[in-house]
Amino acid sequence: MSALSQLYEGKAKIIYTTEDPEVLIAHFKDDATAFNAQKRGTIQGKGQMNCTISSRLFEQLEAQGIQTHYLEQLNGNDMRVKAVKIIPLEVVIRNIAAGSLCQQTGIPLGQILPKPLVEFHYKNDALGDPLLTRDRTLLLELATPEQLDQIQQVALEVNQHLQAFFTRCGITLVDFKLEFGLDSAQTLLLADEISPDTCRLWNAAETDPNLRVMDKDRFRRDLGNVEAGYQQVLERILNQASGRN
Amino acid sequence: MSALSQLYEGKAKIIYTTEDPEVLIAHFKDDATAFNAQKRGTIQGKGQMNCTISSRLFEQLEAQGIQTHYLEQLNGNDMRVKAVKIIPLEVVIRNIAAGSLCQQTGIPLGQILPKPLVEFHYKNDALGDPLLTRDRTLLLELATPEQLDQIQQVALEVNQHLQAFFTRCGITLVDFKLEFGLDSAQTLLLADEISPDTCRLWNAAETDPNLRVMDKDRFRRDLGNVEAGYQQVLERILNQASGRN
Repeated sequence: MSALSQLYEGKAKIIYTTEDPEVLIAHFKDDATAFNAQKRGTIQGKGQMNCTISSRLFEQLEAQGIQTHYLEQLNGNDMRVKAVKIIPLEVVIRNIAAGSLCQQTGIPLGQILPKPLVEFHYKNDALGDPLLTRDRTLLLELATPEQLDQIQQVALEVNQHLQAFFTRCGITLVDFKLEFGLDSAQTLLLADEISPDTCRLWNAAETDPNLRVMDKDRFRRDLGNVEAGYQQVLERILNQASGRN
Repeated sequence: MSALSQLYEGKAKIIYTTEDPEVLIAHFKDDATAFNAQKRGTIQGKGQMNCTISSRLFEQLEAQGIQTHYLEQLNGNDMRVKAVKIIPLEVVIRNIAAGSLCQQTGIPLGQILPKPLVEFHYKNDALGDPLLTRDRTLLLELATPEQLDQIQQVALEVNQHLQAFFTRCGITLVDFKLEFGLDSAQTLLLADEISPDTCRLWNAAETDPNLRVMDKDRFRRDLGNVEAGYQQVLERILNQASGRN
């Protein structure tokens, strides 16, 4: 099964149709953007690294009973996925305070949260992906109350599984963003990607606040060695996923 | 009972202590600020108008069983109030979409909301009074879950009473901001002020989107005739509160 025509191009991926209307191909790009695409660049090899990281993490989650859009990694940059209609919500799960949570609340960077925080942002570039309250999410009819409850529950389950997996990799899962979609049967599936583009990942053995960063914050904050951070995440995940250590 | 010493100066009011530790005096200023005090100016006579409007509205609400900090209007600019510890939340009640709700969600200005929206902002100038989710409010320990539930319920009751009163004044209550405080017995009291500084009020008989504005948006958006807008609100409220029409 090969890609037919381009369905959609996002900031980090291109989505292609296939002969099967229930199946799409996600092509991971090396393009990097931050701050709602005000900062742009390229991270060499990112497409292949993120496609591989995402594939292994989706496999881990599927093995734990999480329903995802993942079917298989085709080659370096391409992932075969189930076709879903994306719910326009960026679901952010936070274990440790970082990023916009710190900026908007004054909670210091690195503060461990008493329990994981699940937050919803409106996936809307023109509006700058604003934080949503539950009432605003319902007012905008982005999801039903039942879907929101289900997303919240699945997001917390995904967090538990990923936290445990990353801990075994020697990586602290600070926060991450998920997207969900509905397939043709209206089943909720975890979609998009899970990668250093969408997670804050800290080297658990490192306490220096800049050296520990293994994710897109290296690009956002011009910390250097961006590729090396992604590469380290990839290697640790591959070692852990294959049972080596 | 006279004012003793200045306890606090805010953007629109100065709070003075009195001989009674349970009683404070709120002095309403003519100073006007907008956009987190980036825009500053003076609205002639605002202090007296807002003190009078607020006093009459607190009296209306007290008559409906709402517990407020209001004791009496002393003279033009001064209001005797019960001493409370202000909960650092700006509680915004919206009946019609306007302001930051439109900017952040894309909902068009003037859209009537299917039901009133109660939103919480962190009362924190340094952070720009950001929108809070319920979970963020609890994480910041700004109020207990029980206090949040009570504030939400009282805010909706206040909205019902004010909407009915303003309708009789020929004014549409678009949205407004409330603040709450706790007295020495930890009783929740409606505090601060209710005025054209803190409400969006539209002349119900006017459809022109600029001409209908009777509130601080005339100042924010440089619409002119700011004093006349406040004066019109004052006159209609005085007529209605005294039973005239």
